[in-house]
Amino acid sequence: MVELKEDERLDYLLAEKLRIIQSPTVFAFSLDAVLLAKFVYVPIQKGKLIDLCSGNGVIPLFLSTRTKGSITGIEIQRRLFDMAVRSIRYNCLESRLQMIHGDIKDMPKQLGYGKYDVVTCNPPYFITPSKEEMNRNEHLAIARHEILCNLEDAVRVSSQLVRTGGKVAFVHRPGRLADLIVMMCKYKLEPKRLQFIYPKLGKEANMILVEAVKDGKPDLKILRPFIVYNDKNEYTKEMRELLYGKQ
Amino acid sequence: MVELKEDERLDYLLAEKLRIIQSPTVFAFSLDAVLLAKFVYVPIQKGKLIDLCSGNGVIPLFLSTRTKGSITGIEIQRRLFDMAVRSIRYNCLESRLQMIHGDIKDMPKQLGYGKYDVVTCNPPYFITPSKEEMNRNEHLAIARHEILCNLEDAVRVSSQLVRTGGKVAFVHRPGRLADLIVMMCKYKLEPKRLQFIYPKLGKEANMILVEAVKDGKPDLKILRPFIVYNDKNEYTKEMRELLYGKQ
Repeated sequence: MVELKEDERLDYLLAEKLRIIQSPTVFAFSLDAVLLAKFVYVPIQKGKLIDLCSGNGVIPLFLSTRTKGSITGIEIQRRLFDMAVRSIRYNCLESRLQMIHGDIKDMPKQLGYGKYDVVTCNPPYFITPSKEEMNRNEHLAIARHEILCNLEDAVRVSSQLVRTGGKVAFVHRPGRLADLIVMMCKYKLEPKRLQFIYPKLGKEANMILVEAVKDGKPDLKILRPFIVYNDKNEYTKEMRELLYGKQ
Repeated sequence: MVELKEDERLDYLLAEKLRIIQSPTVFAFSLDAVLLAKFVYVPIQKGKLIDLCSGNGVIPLFLSTRTKGSITGIEIQRRLFDMAVRSIRYNCLESRLQMIHGDIKDMPKQLGYGKYDVVTCNPPYFITPSKEEMNRNEHLAIARHEILCNLEDAVRVSSQLVRTGGKVAFVHRPGRLADLIVMMCKYKLEPKRLQFIYPKLGKEANMILVEAVKDGKPDLKILRPFIVYNDKNEYTKEMRELLYGKQ
Protein backbone atom coordinates (compact mmCIF):
# COMPACT_ATOMS: atom_id res chain seq x y z
CA MET A 1 0.00 0.00 0.00
CA VAL A 2 1.16 3.52 -0.69
CA GLU A 3 -0.23 6.86 0.31
CA LEU A 4 -0.65 9.14 -2.72
CA LYS A 5 -1.07 12.86 -2.08
CA GLU A 6 -2.97 15.37 -4.23
CA ASP A 7 -2.30 14.74 -7.93
CA GLU A 8 0.40 12.11 -7.40
CA ARG A 9 0.40 8.92 -9.48
CA LEU A 10 2.19 5.60 -9.00
CA ASP A 11 4.02 5.16 -12.32
CA TYR A 12 5.96 2.20 -13.63
CA LEU A 13 9.71 2.61 -13.95
CA LEU A 14 9.70 1.43 -17.54
CA ALA A 15 11.93 -1.59 -18.09
CA GLU A 16 12.29 -2.21 -14.37
CA LYS A 17 9.87 -3.97 -12.03
CA LEU A 18 9.70 -0.88 -9.87
CA ARG A 19 7.13 1.82 -9.37
CA ILE A 20 7.64 5.48 -8.57
CA ILE A 21 5.45 8.23 -7.18
CA GLN A 22 5.21 11.17 -9.55
CA SER A 23 3.19 14.31 -9.94
CA PRO A 24 2.85 16.49 -13.00
CA THR A 25 2.74 19.66 -10.90
CA VAL A 26 5.57 18.76 -8.50
CA PHE A 27 8.05 16.48 -10.25
CA ALA A 28 8.04 13.77 -12.88
CA PHE A 29 11.27 12.22 -14.13
CA SER A 30 12.42 12.61 -17.70
CA LEU A 31 14.55 10.72 -20.20
CA ASP A 32 17.60 12.52 -18.83
CA ALA A 33 17.45 10.59 -15.55
CA VAL A 34 16.97 7.24 -17.30
CA LEU A 35 19.94 7.88 -19.59
CA LEU A 36 22.20 8.94 -16.72
CA ALA A 37 21.24 5.92 -14.59
CA LYS A 38 22.11 3.56 -17.48
CA PHE A 39 25.23 5.42 -18.60
CA VAL A 40 27.15 5.66 -15.34
CA TYR A 41 29.60 3.00 -14.29
CA VAL A 42 28.40 1.10 -11.19
CA PRO A 43 30.12 -1.50 -9.03
CA ILE A 44 27.83 -4.55 -9.17
CA GLN A 45 28.29 -6.40 -5.89
CA LYS A 46 28.88 -3.59 -3.39
CA GLY A 47 29.93 0.01 -3.02
CA LYS A 48 28.60 3.36 -1.90
CA LEU A 49 26.70 5.47 -4.43
CA ILE A 50 25.19 8.90 -3.94
CA ASP A 51 22.80 10.87 -6.14
CA LEU A 52 22.63 14.66 -5.81
CA CYS A 53 19.53 16.72 -6.69
CA SER A 54 17.58 13.49 -6.51
CA GLY A 55 14.04 14.81 -7.01
CA ASN A 56 11.55 12.00 -6.50
CA GLY A 57 14.41 9.48 -6.23
CA VAL A 58 14.26 8.26 -9.81
CA ILE A 59 18.01 7.77 -10.23
CA PRO A 60 18.52 5.87 -6.94
CA LEU A 61 15.58 3.63 -7.89
CA PHE A 62 17.01 2.91 -11.34
CA LEU A 63 20.52 2.37 -9.94
CA SER A 64 19.15 -0.18 -7.45
CA THR A 65 18.52 -2.54 -10.39
CA ARG A 66 22.18 -2.38 -11.45
CA THR A 67 24.05 -2.70 -8.15
CA LYS A 68 23.76 -4.40 -4.78
CA GLY A 69 25.62 -1.47 -3.20
CA SER A 70 24.05 1.15 -0.94
CA ILE A 71 22.59 4.27 -2.56
CA THR A 72 21.90 7.62 -0.95
CA GLY A 73 19.79 10.33 -2.55
CA ILE A 74 19.93 13.99 -1.54
CA GLU A 75 16.95 16.27 -2.11
CA ILE A 76 16.41 19.76 -0.76
CA GLN A 77 12.67 20.04 -1.44
CA ARG A 78 10.70 18.34 1.36
CA ARG A 79 7.76 17.52 -0.91
CA LEU A 80 10.02 15.66 -3.41
CA PHE A 81 12.08 14.03 -0.66
CA ASP A 82 8.83 12.72 0.81
CA MET A 83 7.74 11.25 -2.53
CA ALA A 84 11.13 9.51 -2.85
CA VAL A 85 10.92 8.04 0.67
CA ARG A 86 7.46 6.61 -0.03
CA SER A 87 8.58 5.14 -3.39
CA ILE A 88 11.57 3.45 -1.74
CA ARG A 89 9.29 2.00 0.93
CA TYR A 90 6.73 0.86 -1.69
CA ASN A 91 9.48 -1.04 -3.54
CA CYS A 92 10.84 -2.52 -0.26
CA LEU A 93 14.29 -1.07 -0.88
CA GLU A 94 14.84 0.60 2.52
CA SER A 95 17.77 -1.69 3.34
CA ARG A 96 19.86 -0.37 0.43
CA LEU A 97 18.37 3.03 -0.48
CA GLN A 98 18.13 6.02 1.78
CA MET A 99 17.10 9.59 1.15
CA ILE A 100 18.48 12.63 2.99
CA HIS A 101 16.49 15.82 3.11
CA GLY A 102 19.04 18.61 2.90
CA ASP A 103 21.26 20.92 0.89
CA ILE A 104 23.93 19.15 -1.19
CA LYS A 105 26.40 21.87 -0.11
CA ASP A 106 26.21 20.57 3.50
CA MET A 107 26.76 16.93 2.58
CA PRO A 108 30.57 16.65 2.50
CA LYS A 109 30.70 17.89 6.12
CA GLN A 110 27.74 15.73 7.12
CA LEU A 111 28.66 12.51 5.25
CA GLY A 112 32.44 12.79 4.98
CA TYR A 113 34.99 13.61 2.27
CA GLY A 114 36.03 11.02 -0.32
CA LYS A 115 33.74 8.28 0.98
CA TYR A 116 31.75 7.46 -2.17
CA ASP A 117 32.57 5.23 -5.13
CA VAL A 118 30.06 6.85 -7.47
CA VAL A 119 28.29 10.23 -7.54
CA THR A 120 25.48 10.97 -9.99
CA CYS A 121 23.77 14.30 -10.63
CA ASN A 122 20.97 15.50 -12.90
CA PRO A 123 21.25 19.15 -11.86
CA PRO A 124 18.88 22.04 -12.49
CA TYR A 125 19.58 23.03 -16.12
CA PHE A 126 18.61 26.65 -16.44
CA ILE A 127 20.30 29.71 -15.04
CA THR A 128 17.49 31.69 -13.39
CA PRO A 129 13.72 31.69 -13.73
CA SER A 130 11.57 34.77 -14.08
CA LYS A 131 9.69 35.92 -10.96
CA GLU A 132 6.47 34.91 -12.65
CA GLU A 133 7.73 31.39 -13.28
CA MET A 134 8.89 31.16 -9.67
CA ASN A 135 5.48 32.24 -8.39
CA ARG A 136 3.59 29.93 -10.70
CA ASN A 137 5.25 26.73 -9.51
CA GLU A 138 8.04 26.89 -6.99
CA HIS A 139 8.64 23.10 -6.98
CA LEU A 140 9.29 22.91 -10.71
CA ALA A 141 11.24 26.19 -10.72
CA ILE A 142 13.66 24.91 -8.04
CA ALA A 143 14.09 21.55 -9.78
CA ARG A 144 14.79 23.19 -13.15
CA HIS A 145 16.71 26.36 -12.34
CA GLU A 146 19.93 27.16 -10.52
CA ILE A 147 18.13 28.71 -7.56
CA LEU A 148 19.34 26.69 -4.58
CA CYS A 149 22.40 25.15 -6.21
CA ASN A 150 24.34 26.06 -9.34
CA LEU A 151 26.46 23.89 -11.59
CA GLU A 152 29.68 24.79 -9.82
CA ASP A 153 28.16 23.80 -6.41
CA ALA A 154 27.11 20.44 -7.84
CA VAL A 155 30.54 19.74 -9.37
CA ARG A 156 32.47 20.89 -6.28
CA VAL A 157 30.31 18.82 -3.90
CA SER A 158 30.62 15.76 -6.19
CA SER A 159 34.38 16.10 -6.10
CA GLN A 160 34.37 16.40 -2.31
CA LEU A 161 32.17 13.32 -1.82
CA VAL A 162 33.91 10.93 -4.26
CA ARG A 163 37.04 8.95 -3.45
CA THR A 164 40.21 9.12 -5.57
CA GLY A 165 39.54 6.91 -8.58
CA GLY A 166 35.77 7.07 -8.04
CA LYS A 167 33.33 8.10 -10.75
CA VAL A 168 31.20 11.23 -11.09
CA ALA A 169 28.51 11.32 -13.78
CA PHE A 170 26.36 14.25 -14.90
CA VAL A 171 23.64 14.73 -17.47
CA HIS A 172 23.18 18.23 -18.89
CA ARG A 173 22.32 20.24 -21.97
CA PRO A 174 24.87 20.86 -24.76
CA GLY A 175 24.91 24.59 -23.99
CA ARG A 176 26.71 23.90 -20.71
CA LEU A 177 29.26 21.32 -21.92
CA ALA A 178 32.16 23.78 -21.89
CA ASP A 179 31.26 25.02 -18.37
CA LEU A 180 30.86 21.49 -17.10
CA ILE A 181 34.25 20.36 -18.46
CA VAL A 182 36.04 23.46 -17.19
CA MET A 183 34.52 23.02 -13.70
CA MET A 184 35.22 19.31 -13.58
CA CYS A 185 38.88 19.95 -14.43
CA LYS A 186 39.00 22.72 -11.80
CA TYR A 187 37.83 20.26 -9.13
CA LYS A 188 40.16 17.40 -10.19
CA LEU A 189 37.45 15.41 -11.92
CA GLU A 190 38.99 14.22 -15.19
CA PRO A 191 36.37 13.66 -17.92
CA LYS A 192 36.76 10.09 -19.24
CA ARG A 193 33.53 9.15 -21.05
CA LEU A 194 31.21 11.41 -23.01
CA GLN A 195 28.05 10.47 -24.85
CA PHE A 196 25.82 12.70 -26.91
CA ILE A 197 22.10 12.13 -27.35
CA TYR A 198 20.75 13.11 -30.77
CA PRO A 199 16.96 13.19 -31.22
CA LYS A 200 17.50 12.05 -34.84
CA LEU A 201 20.50 11.21 -36.99
CA GLY A 202 20.61 14.54 -38.84
CA LYS A 203 19.86 16.73 -35.79
CA GLU A 204 21.92 18.55 -33.19
CA ALA A 205 22.45 16.81 -29.86
CA ASN A 206 20.02 17.82 -27.11
CA MET A 207 21.59 16.04 -24.14
CA ILE A 208 25.09 15.24 -22.95
CA LEU A 209 26.34 12.57 -20.55
CA VAL A 210 29.74 13.03 -18.91
CA GLU A 211 31.58 10.66 -16.60
CA ALA A 212 34.74 11.80 -14.83
CA VAL A 213 37.24 10.08 -12.55
CA LYS A 214 38.56 11.84 -9.45
CA ASP A 215 42.29 12.55 -9.94
CA GLY A 216 42.19 10.49 -13.17
CA LYS A 217 44.65 10.75 -16.05
CA PRO A 218 43.46 12.59 -19.20
CA ASP A 219 42.08 10.06 -21.68
CA LEU A 220 38.64 10.92 -22.93
CA LYS A 221 36.45 8.61 -24.99
CA ILE A 222 33.43 9.79 -26.96
CA LEU A 223 31.00 6.89 -27.02
CA ARG A 224 28.82 5.97 -30.00
CA PRO A 225 26.07 8.50 -30.73
CA PHE A 226 22.78 7.67 -29.01
CA ILE A 227 19.93 8.29 -31.45
CA VAL A 228 16.36 8.52 -30.09
CA TYR A 229 14.19 8.36 -33.25
CA ASN A 230 14.82 6.75 -36.64
CA ASP A 231 13.83 8.46 -39.90
CA LYS A 232 10.29 7.06 -39.64
CA ASN A 233 9.90 8.84 -36.28
CA GLU A 234 9.86 5.55 -34.40
CA TYR A 235 12.10 4.85 -31.41
CA THR A 236 15.44 3.31 -32.42
CA LYS A 237 16.36 -0.15 -31.16
CA GLU A 238 18.69 1.28 -28.50
CA MET A 239 15.95 3.63 -27.28
CA ARG A 240 13.41 0.79 -27.08
CA GLU A 241 15.90 -1.30 -25.11
CA LEU A 242 16.51 1.60 -22.75
CA LEU A 243 12.81 2.11 -22.13
CA TYR A 244 11.39 -1.40 -22.27
CA GLY A 245 14.42 -3.66 -21.77
CA LYS A 246 15.89 -6.18 -24.23
CA GLN A 247 13.08 -8.01 -25.99
CA MET B 1 54.29 23.51 -64.87
CA VAL B 2 55.41 22.51 -61.43
CA GLU B 3 58.67 21.30 -60.05
CA LEU B 4 58.26 18.04 -58.10
CA LYS B 5 61.07 17.00 -55.76
CA GLU B 6 62.07 13.46 -54.78
CA ASP B 7 58.97 11.35 -54.09
CA GLU B 8 56.47 14.21 -54.37
CA ARG B 9 53.23 13.76 -56.30
CA LEU B 10 50.73 16.26 -57.66
CA ASP B 11 47.44 15.06 -56.16
CA TYR B 12 43.89 16.23 -56.83
CA LEU B 13 42.15 18.06 -54.01
CA LEU B 14 39.14 15.80 -54.25
CA ALA B 15 35.92 17.73 -54.87
CA GLU B 16 37.83 20.88 -55.78
CA LYS B 17 39.44 21.77 -59.08
CA LEU B 18 42.77 22.21 -57.35
CA ARG B 19 45.90 20.16 -57.13
CA ILE B 20 48.34 19.83 -54.28
CA ILE B 21 51.90 18.64 -53.94
CA GLN B 22 52.22 15.78 -51.48
CA SER B 23 54.80 13.24 -50.45
CA PRO B 24 54.23 10.06 -48.52
CA THR B 25 57.50 10.47 -46.63
CA VAL B 26 57.20 14.18 -45.89
CA PHE B 27 53.54 15.13 -45.60
CA ALA B 28 50.22 14.09 -47.11
CA PHE B 29 46.98 15.59 -45.91
CA SER B 30 44.34 13.51 -44.18
CA LEU B 31 40.58 13.56 -43.72
CA ASP B 32 41.07 15.77 -40.65
CA ALA B 33 42.14 18.74 -42.79
CA VAL B 34 39.26 18.28 -45.23
CA LEU B 35 36.74 18.14 -42.40
CA LEU B 36 38.15 21.22 -40.69
CA ALA B 37 38.21 23.23 -43.93
CA LYS B 38 34.52 22.42 -44.57
CA PHE B 39 33.41 22.82 -40.94
CA VAL B 40 34.76 26.25 -40.14
CA TYR B 41 32.70 29.38 -40.67
CA VAL B 42 34.15 31.58 -43.43
CA PRO B 43 33.21 35.04 -44.63
CA ILE B 44 32.40 34.62 -48.33
CA GLN B 45 33.24 37.94 -50.00
CA LYS B 46 36.24 39.18 -48.03
CA GLY B 47 38.10 38.85 -44.76
CA LYS B 48 41.44 37.76 -43.36
CA LEU B 49 41.95 34.09 -42.60
CA ILE B 50 45.01 32.41 -41.16
CA ASP B 51 45.90 28.73 -40.86
CA LEU B 52 48.42 27.59 -38.24
CA CYS B 53 50.54 24.43 -38.58
CA SER B 54 49.69 24.49 -42.27
CA GLY B 55 51.82 21.60 -43.52
CA ASN B 56 51.68 21.46 -47.31
CA GLY B 57 49.00 24.17 -47.34
CA VAL B 58 46.02 21.86 -47.67
CA ILE B 59 43.67 23.92 -45.49
CA PRO B 60 44.45 27.28 -47.18
CA LEU B 61 43.90 25.59 -50.56
CA PHE B 62 40.55 24.15 -49.50
CA LEU B 63 39.48 27.42 -47.88
CA SER B 64 40.26 29.31 -51.10
CA THR B 65 37.25 27.58 -52.71
CA ARG B 66 34.89 28.90 -50.01
CA THR B 67 35.98 32.53 -49.64
CA LYS B 68 37.30 35.40 -51.70
CA GLY B 69 39.16 36.69 -48.63
CA SER B 70 42.93 36.53 -48.15
CA ILE B 71 44.41 33.45 -46.53
CA THR B 72 47.77 33.10 -44.81
CA GLY B 73 49.33 29.76 -43.90
CA ILE B 74 52.08 29.37 -41.31
CA GLU B 75 54.47 26.43 -41.48
CA ILE B 76 57.68 25.93 -39.52
CA GLN B 77 59.19 23.12 -41.63
CA ARG B 78 60.93 24.58 -44.69
CA ARG B 79 60.35 21.47 -46.78
CA LEU B 80 56.57 21.59 -46.21
CA PHE B 81 56.43 25.37 -46.56
CA ASP B 82 58.15 24.97 -49.92
CA MET B 83 55.62 22.38 -51.09
CA ALA B 84 52.77 24.72 -50.10
CA VAL B 85 54.31 27.67 -51.98
CA ARG B 86 54.67 25.61 -55.15
CA SER B 87 51.08 24.30 -54.87
CA ILE B 88 49.73 27.83 -54.47
CA ARG B 89 51.68 28.95 -57.53
CA TYR B 90 50.53 25.91 -59.55
CA ASN B 91 46.89 26.79 -58.80
CA CYS B 92 47.52 30.50 -59.61
CA LEU B 93 46.32 31.59 -56.17
CA GLU B 94 49.26 33.85 -55.21
CA SER B 95 47.02 36.94 -55.14
CA ARG B 96 44.93 35.59 -52.25
CA LEU B 97 47.06 32.90 -50.58
CA GLN B 98 50.41 33.43 -48.96
CA MET B 99 52.61 31.15 -46.90
CA ILE B 100 54.93 32.30 -44.11
CA HIS B 101 57.85 30.14 -43.08
CA GLY B 102 58.12 30.54 -39.33
CA ASP B 103 57.12 29.61 -35.81
CA ILE B 104 53.47 30.24 -34.96
CA LYS B 105 54.59 31.57 -31.57
CA ASP B 106 56.26 34.55 -33.31
CA MET B 107 53.23 35.43 -35.46
CA PRO B 108 51.21 37.71 -33.16
CA LYS B 109 54.24 40.01 -32.84
CA GLN B 110 55.03 39.73 -36.54
CA LEU B 111 51.48 40.00 -37.96
CA GLY B 112 49.66 41.94 -35.24
CA TYR B 113 47.17 41.17 -32.47
CA GLY B 114 43.45 40.76 -33.19
CA LYS B 115 43.78 41.26 -36.95
CA TYR B 116 42.19 38.04 -38.27
CA ASP B 117 38.55 37.10 -38.80
CA VAL B 118 39.19 33.36 -38.81
CA VAL B 119 41.98 31.14 -37.47
CA THR B 120 42.17 27.42 -38.30
CA CYS B 121 44.52 24.83 -36.88
CA ASN B 122 45.08 21.12 -37.38
CA PRO B 123 47.79 20.82 -34.73
CA PRO B 124 50.21 17.98 -34.01
CA TYR B 125 48.08 15.42 -32.14
CA PHE B 126 50.48 13.40 -30.07
CA ILE B 127 52.40 14.39 -26.97
CA THR B 128 55.98 13.25 -27.67
CA PRO B 129 57.54 10.81 -30.08
CA SER B 130 60.15 8.24 -29.18
CA LYS B 131 63.75 9.04 -30.16
CA GLU B 132 63.59 6.25 -32.69
CA GLU B 133 60.50 7.72 -34.32
CA MET B 134 62.17 11.13 -34.39
CA ASN B 135 65.28 9.70 -36.07
CA ARG B 136 63.30 7.68 -38.59
CA ASN B 137 61.40 10.60 -40.07
CA GLU B 138 61.81 14.04 -38.59
CA HIS B 139 59.29 15.67 -40.97
CA LEU B 140 56.44 13.38 -39.99
CA ALA B 141 57.45 13.41 -36.31
CA ILE B 142 57.28 17.23 -36.16
CA ALA B 143 53.97 17.33 -38.01
CA ARG B 144 52.40 14.74 -35.74
CA HIS B 145 53.87 15.38 -32.30
CA GLU B 146 54.01 18.34 -29.95
CA ILE B 147 57.71 18.93 -30.53
CA LEU B 148 57.90 22.51 -31.81
CA CYS B 149 54.46 23.63 -30.60
CA ASN B 150 52.05 22.19 -28.09
CA LEU B 151 48.28 22.50 -27.88
CA GLU B 152 48.44 25.40 -25.46
CA ASP B 153 50.78 27.33 -27.81
CA ALA B 154 48.37 26.79 -30.70
CA VAL B 155 45.33 27.93 -28.68
CA ARG B 156 47.10 30.94 -27.17
CA VAL B 157 48.45 32.12 -30.53
CA SER B 158 45.01 31.65 -32.15
CA SER B 159 43.46 33.81 -29.45
CA GLN B 160 46.12 36.50 -29.97
CA LEU B 161 45.66 36.58 -33.74
CA VAL B 162 41.85 36.62 -33.92
CA ARG B 163 39.72 39.74 -33.48
CA THR B 164 36.93 39.98 -30.89
CA GLY B 165 33.96 38.10 -32.36
CA GLY B 166 36.21 36.26 -34.82
CA LYS B 167 36.22 32.46 -35.16
CA VAL B 168 38.87 29.91 -34.19
CA ALA B 169 38.44 26.30 -35.36
CA PHE B 170 40.47 23.24 -34.41
CA VAL B 171 40.38 19.58 -35.33
CA HIS B 172 41.75 17.10 -32.80
CA ARG B 173 41.32 13.65 -31.30
CA PRO B 174 38.65 12.91 -28.65
CA GLY B 175 41.32 12.23 -26.03
CA ARG B 176 42.21 15.95 -26.00
CA LEU B 177 38.70 17.42 -26.00
CA ALA B 178 38.78 18.33 -22.29
CA ASP B 179 42.24 19.95 -22.63
CA LEU B 180 41.16 21.85 -25.73
CA ILE B 181 38.00 23.23 -24.10
CA VAL B 182 39.81 24.18 -20.88
CA MET B 183 42.54 25.99 -22.86
CA MET B 184 40.11 27.75 -25.16
CA CYS B 185 38.18 29.06 -22.15
CA LYS B 186 41.46 30.12 -20.51
CA TYR B 187 42.32 32.22 -23.59
CA LYS B 188 38.82 33.76 -23.96
CA LEU B 189 37.82 31.58 -26.89
CA GLU B 190 34.26 30.48 -26.13
CA PRO B 191 33.40 27.12 -27.74
CA LYS B 192 30.25 27.57 -29.84
CA ARG B 193 30.05 24.66 -32.30
CA LEU B 194 31.21 21.11 -31.80
CA GLN B 195 30.97 18.20 -34.19
CA PHE B 196 32.01 14.61 -33.63
CA ILE B 197 33.16 12.28 -36.38
CA TYR B 198 32.15 8.66 -35.89
CA PRO B 199 33.71 6.04 -38.22
CA LYS B 200 30.42 4.10 -38.02
CA LEU B 201 27.10 4.59 -36.28
CA GLY B 202 27.79 2.17 -33.41
CA LYS B 203 31.42 3.24 -32.88
CA GLU B 204 33.21 5.74 -30.68
CA ALA B 205 34.10 9.09 -32.24
CA ASN B 206 37.65 9.34 -33.61
CA MET B 207 37.79 13.04 -34.45
CA ILE B 208 36.44 16.25 -32.99
CA LEU B 209 35.81 19.64 -34.59
CA VAL B 210 35.54 22.69 -32.34
CA GLU B 211 34.77 26.27 -33.32
CA ALA B 212 35.09 29.05 -30.76
CA VAL B 213 34.36 32.78 -30.80
CA LYS B 214 36.78 35.26 -29.23
CA ASP B 215 35.10 36.84 -26.18
CA GLY B 216 31.83 35.11 -27.15
CA LYS B 217 28.95 34.35 -24.80
CA PRO B 218 28.56 30.72 -23.64
CA ASP B 219 26.10 28.93 -25.93
CA LEU B 220 27.44 25.69 -27.31
CA LYS B 221 25.76 23.66 -30.06
CA ILE B 222 26.63 20.04 -30.79
CA LEU B 223 26.03 19.54 -34.50
CA ARG B 224 24.59 16.37 -36.03
CA PRO B 225 26.91 13.37 -35.83
CA PHE B 226 29.11 12.97 -38.91
CA ILE B 227 29.26 9.28 -39.85
CA VAL B 228 31.97 8.09 -42.26
CA TYR B 229 30.86 4.54 -43.19
CA ASN B 230 27.40 2.96 -43.32
CA ASP B 231 26.78 -0.59 -42.08
CA LYS B 232 27.80 -2.02 -45.49
CA ASN B 233 31.22 -0.38 -45.06
CA GLU B 234 30.53 2.09 -47.86
CA TYR B 235 30.98 5.83 -47.49
CA THR B 236 27.84 7.58 -46.25
CA LYS B 237 26.17 10.21 -48.42
CA GLU B 238 27.63 13.07 -46.37
CA MET B 239 31.11 11.56 -46.66
CA ARG B 240 30.78 11.16 -50.44
CA GLU B 241 29.66 14.77 -50.72
CA LEU B 242 32.60 15.90 -48.64
CA LEU B 243 35.07 14.00 -50.80
CA TYR B 244 33.59 14.23 -54.28
CA GLY B 245 31.14 17.15 -54.03
CA LYS B 246 27.34 17.05 -54.46
CA GLN B 247 26.45 14.69 -57.31
